[in-house]
Amino acid sequence: MSDLVYLNGEWLAPEQAKVSVFDRGFLFADGIYEVMPIYQGRPFLATQHLARLHRSLAAIAIPDQPDEFWQSLVAELIERNGLQNGLIYFQVTRGAETKRSHLPQGPITPTIFASISPLELHWDIPKPAKAVLCEDIRWLRCDIKSISLLGNIVLKQYAQQHHAIEPMLHRDGVVTEGASSNYFAVKDGVLYTAPTNHLILPGITRMWVLQLAHQLKLTVREEPFHISELAQLDELFLTSSSREVQPIGQIDDIIIGNGRCGPLTQQLIEAFHASKRAHLA
Amino acid sequence: MSDLVYLNGEWLAPEQAKVSVFDRGFLFADGIYEVMPIYQGRPFLATQHLARLHRSLAAIAIPDQPDEFWQSLVAELIERNGLQNGLIYFQVTRGAETKRSHLPQGPITPTIFASISPLELHWDIPKPAKAVLCEDIRWLRCDIKSISLLGNIVLKQYAQQHHAIEPMLHRDGVVTEGASSNYFAVKDGVLYTAPTNHLILPGITRMWVLQLAHQLKLTVREEPFHISELAQLDELFLTSSSREVQPIGQIDDIIIGNGRCGPLTQQLIEAFHASKRAHLA
Repeated sequence: MSDLVYLNGEWLAPEQAKVSVFDRGFLFADGIYEVMPIYQGRPFLATQHLARLHRSLAAIAIPDQPDEFWQSLVAELIERNGLQNGLIYFQVTRGAETKRSHLPQGPITPTIFASISPLELHWDIPKPAKAVLCEDIRWLRCDIKSISLLGNIVLKQYAQQHHAIEPMLHRDGVVTEGASSNYFAVKDGVLYTAPTNHLILPGITRMWVLQLAHQLKLTVREEPFHISELAQLDELFLTSSSREVQPIGQIDDIIIGNGRCGPLTQQLIEAFHASKRAHLA
Repeated sequence: MSDLVYLNGEWLAPEQAKVSVFDRGFLFADGIYEVMPIYQGRPFLATQHLARLHRSLAAIAIPDQPDEFWQSLVAELIERNGLQNGLIYFQVTRGAETKRSHLPQGPITPTIFASISPLELHWDIPKPAKAVLCEDIRWLRCDIKSISLLGNIVLKQYAQQHHAIEPMLHRDGVVTEGASSNYFAVKDGVLYTAPTNHLILPGITRMWVLQLAHQLKLTVREEPFHISELAQLDELFLTSSSREVQPIGQIDDIIIGNGRCGPLTQQLIEAFHASKRAHLA
């Protein structure tokens, strides 16, 4: 039952995997992470996840490893843990020095940590859930998948206190994304999603759903919506690697559509399942 | 030579002090820190630093310890390390669970880490230094002294690349603070500093300098300045626990005043030194 985790070249039981208190990940959140779904022992959208991992590392100038390194790490995590369905988690920090200093005082070796967690492979239409509106208090480089996540945690706490699965974040009323998801809205048959810029994470599931929408010949606009338009939306859903496509039936006290999973959302969920089936075939 | 660090009740050599990779400080930057100067073995402005530590913990709902706990930790750090002049560093995270989840899945015990670093007790007038302007990309709760510091690190890197000691951050042109300092500007004999709100850290040295300025009967306005006013400033300096009062002679290509340490800055540095002398008497 005890999964093995990877830490700087070693395979360890989770309780034995420890990093220095002087690791810059612990002191400064100076690092990035990535999450990759595994279905029936096979990585899903691995190329896209690894491309984003490279991009995150480059964005904050942490030395990277070649694709082969990450690919064999994925393979070994799956094999050593007999992983069927789950998520692989990668984290890379700038490494540890012997004392705390905002800027590294010499060359240091990045810390690489990887672990797995279970995730059910599901084929159903998820029940619509509730989200809450929150001011987006996070930094202005949300396009980097960084471990500097306290803002996200505080917002997630707020959502939990309001019995919502996710905070829907907005800046001056313009909706950006969820704290760990992107969103899609439907209005008059058109699918809207916030454009990729420094305010949102370029979600792999977001990109995949966009691709499916194009295949289905849906009209798509990469434009955000304003919170004043919420009551007029026909459908709303969130996307993330762990949630895939999650319909939202309510935001605060506003019922979206009729509170049920709308037809376009359903169509995209079915297309998503079909793409998983194709991946596993 | 090897200082002892404190970690969850244990006293350890720095290289032995390790936390779980599942510590929420490492995974999510879910924690806060505090830094307290020690002069000749005595904590300086300890009450104020501990008050801010309590405030930071309360702001993100991490369980705190009573004042006596922190006071005896300070005393023990000084005693065990024979610390004369230095900085005490405290870090508290929400603790470790056995797996990664944005929100804690059960009750967890906070991780408490403390260490020391050397700091010279100085009595000179520091040479004016260069700063660079940067857009303030950090989150909107800069009043919390959190370890979610990647934004600060990225901005510090930029300053280093431009041979500056600190980035001067601004939001839409309004100067907020440095990446690890507050600022004071002088114009026509009036001392300006950004007001304390969610955009800046309520610096203990900032507050102390304000108090000294009042004692010196200087005219003080807690109002920020706009980057368009930079060329008209007479003096500019930064404050922080490690730098105390640091004159700034240049921002980007703009020389402040005549590039030398101005008279009000000098007066406040001398008052600061006098307050240290009084503390040590």
